[in-house]
Amino acid sequence: MKKLIILTVFFNILMAFTIPQKKQRIVFFGDSITQAGVKPGGYITVLGDMYKQKGVQEQYELIGAGIGGNKVYDLYLRMEEDVLAKDPNTVVIWVGVNDVWHKKTSGTGTDADKFEKFYNAIIKKLQAKNIKVLICTPAAIGEKTDFSNELDGDLNKYANIIRQIAQKNNVDLIDLRKAFLDYNLANNPENKDRNILTTDGVHLNEKGNQLVAEQMLKALGK
Amino acid sequence: MKKLIILTVFFNILMAFTIPQKKQRIVFFGDSITQAGVKPGGYITVLGDMYKQKGVQEQYELIGAGIGGNKVYDLYLRMEEDVLAKDPNTVVIWVGVNDVWHKKTSGTGTDADKFEKFYNAIIKKLQAKNIKVLICTPAAIGEKTDFSNELDGDLNKYANIIRQIAQKNNVDLIDLRKAFLDYNLANNPENKDRNILTTDGVHLNEKGNQLVAEQMLKALGK
Amino acid sequence: MKKLIILTVFFNILMAFTIPQKKQRIVFFGDSITQAGVKPGGYITVLGDMYKQKGVQEQYELIGAGIGGNKVYDLYLRMEEDVLAKDPNTVVIWVGVNDVWHKKTSGTGTDADKFEKFYNAIIKKLQAKNIKVLICTPAAIGEKTDFSNELDGDLNKYANIIRQIAQKNNVDLIDLRKAFLDYNLANNPENKDRNILTTDGVHLNEKGNQLVAEQMLKALGK
Amino acid sequence: MKKLIILTVFFNILMAFTIPQKKQRIVFFGDSITQAGVKPGGYITVLGDMYKQKGVQEQYELIGAGIGGNKVYDLYLRMEEDVLAKDPNTVVIWVGVNDVWHKKTSGTGTDADKFEKFYNAIIKKLQAKNIKVLICTPAAIGEKTDFSNELDGDLNKYANIIRQIAQKNNVDLIDLRKAFLDYNLANNPENKDRNILTTDGVHLNEKGNQLVAEQMLKALGK
Repeated sequence: MKKLIILTVFFNILMAFTIPQKKQRIVFFGDSITQAGVKPGGYITVLGDMYKQKGVQEQYELIGAGIGGNKVYDLYLRMEEDVLAKDPNTVVIWVGVNDVWHKKTSGTGTDADKFEKFYNAIIKKLQAKNIKVLICTPAAIGEKTDFSNELDGDLNKYANIIRQIAQKNNVDLIDLRKAFLDYNLANNPENKDRNILTTDGVHLNEKGNQLVAEQMLKALGK
Repeated sequence: MKKLIILTVFFNILMAFTIPQKKQRIVFFGDSITQAGVKPGGYITVLGDMYKQKGVQEQYELIGAGIGGNKVYDLYLRMEEDVLAKDPNTVVIWVGVNDVWHKKTSGTGTDADKFEKFYNAIIKKLQAKNIKVLICTPAAIGEKTDFSNELDGDLNKYANIIRQIAQKNNVDLIDLRKAFLDYNLANNPENKDRNILTTDGVHLNEKGNQLVAEQMLKALGK
Repeated sequence: MKKLIILTVFFNILMAFTIPQKKQRIVFFGDSITQAGVKPGGYITVLGDMYKQKGVQEQYELIGAGIGGNKVYDLYLRMEEDVLAKDPNTVVIWVGVNDVWHKKTSGTGTDADKFEKFYNAIIKKLQAKNIKVLICTPAAIGEKTDFSNELDGDLNKYANIIRQIAQKNNVDLIDLRKAFLDYNLANNPENKDRNILTTDGVHLNEKGNQLVAEQMLKALGK
Repeated sequence: MKKLIILTVFFNILMAFTIPQKKQRIVFFGDSITQAGVKPGGYITVLGDMYKQKGVQEQYELIGAGIGGNKVYDLYLRMEEDVLAKDPNTVVIWVGVNDVWHKKTSGTGTDADKFEKFYNAIIKKLQAKNIKVLICTPAAIGEKTDFSNELDGDLNKYANIIRQIAQKNNVDLIDLRKAFLDYNLANNPENKDRNILTTDGVHLNEKGNQLVAEQMLKALGK
């Protein structure tokens, strides 16, 4: 009996060294915020550091797939090459800011119904390959807490659409918009439009990267 | 003593019939909402009825000066003819919906800084003639209560601007946006975008006309 | 020798009856203009009638795949189901009006660089299946001939992009914009914005359907 | 008889030296292009130099009244202070680029009907003071000659409106749009969008300032 235990322990130790454990490959699929996420201090880098601190870094491969200016249909167009070709286990989709913002800046945002259509098409293609999908609400275009950021109405509308998409497709939701608002309600007493979690109302500062990494960690750990 | 009282009463009755009391002339200056305000059931008509019920209708002349599609600079352009020429004692300005809305529908909304500039210019011209000014926040473009009406952010921004204009120019504020939101929070549990106080998210239904008339009555009575 | 000729003729006649000739299957892929193209009097119907008059209707199957409001990325999203699934020999793509128009009407047009990207992606997928591709320039948003239709500049820009796409991808171009302008220069002396080839500046009237069918016939016959 | 002529000539010469001739005061009323017009090399400065070369500089006082980002209603708002207060003999109005451009860049352009309304109101106020008015068409937003500059259609539309305003109000027209197009047709064979008469498609380079000054000189000399 004792021998058996010793052998088993020995065998397990041997396994750990010889049979490579399969890594979880996670692709972060999004826009300029995610493009910056792989830089030093970016949210994907910070998340990687969190895994290191837990000593589980060997279990995860984190891959950034963000391109500046991307809207939902841009993700759809490049998902074969930039996501499926990486053979991921998990994909975290974070898109929506440009779909709303570009309406105002260049007249080339995305209609709500088409936003939903393309989003569903992306999820469907991922799920067809048995890839786990997590989706995020857009965090902010302006950090004021009284909903007087110019695009708050439309951004809330698109956040609601994403929440419904999560429910309908049975995928996990990372509600960054809620997390950002809650944080600002507690930490932005002067109702500033930036410099709490973002540098410009949209792109993450250090605290923002930290908060997003925490949200991702929590959601991915489920 | 008794004789004096009788004489005084008699004198007062005599006065009421012989010396014509000067009417308060109030111009309501705005857009399509105010244009509809003078129709049967419109908020100006309802306000007139309220004065009748109080028996003070002789003290007020209510004049509608609303034109559909008007933005703040349209008011400025026509204020000589449509307002000053009526020699009013009081002007109630209610504008802002189109300044926000037309950004989206035709690319011809009003920049925030110019909105403020023209608004101030109107108030200045009215005050220079010793006309009492009251200004209103835009009530709604959509009645959802979770700030997911597409233009809520920008409308809140312009409502904030108007609140500041009121303070800076020392004019009375009729905060219709707040009144509408409060009413909807209490009476719109399904988060509908219309049919609570409006027919289409913007233009008043019966309840909306009633609420606006009440708000006006209260503010004008001060 | 005579016998041989007689035999050959006989054989040919026999072939015509016994071996079913493979039909050319042509899909017309586009927006509301193409959606209306299959209705009585629509340009696809008119083209079918032209084939009948030539007695070659058996050689062609004309399939409409137009959906109102579609932009280039909408075509990309539904091309598997609506085009590839029909196994066509030829696809005629006619898109672009909404990519320009929606910038103004709803802030949801298509950026020029992304228009080109999606267009190329569609062509690439079709050519990978050995499908012959023909592409059309957008005909008109307004028929004035002095380039004072509000969106003429942008529409000319996108027409230029399509002409370059045709060249780069070596696909045939049906230059409807040029055909419409030429026709209007000859037949619209009063510089009207509609009712020459369209009912509303965009959608085809009888003459417009006729002109488009002629252009298609000529291009498909090459 | 001869004596009379000699006396008259002598008298005229005397007058020219002794009685100070009243200067023509010309205000140039517009946007950023006119704001830059008073800088060294700007079109107003160049026009002043032309008057110097003709030795008539004493007869003209040229006043710049341009402010960046101005649309027609901004001119209307500030015309008392910036134009009428200068007591000009002549006003040259040059506006329209922002009324078109801001539709795209910020959703705050000017509707065509309101553009005309405000323009007419400005002219009416100037003519009521017996001020001579000259009005200009907007020169360019992009210098391509095939009408594929994105905003060409709308800019041509507003140029047409201004041409009609000139006719209806019986004021002189300086058709800068036509002058710019003619110059580009002759000097822009590569169909470039800038660097012929402008630095960025809108604001004048040296050749542009020269061309505008020439056009102004010609028109003011009438």
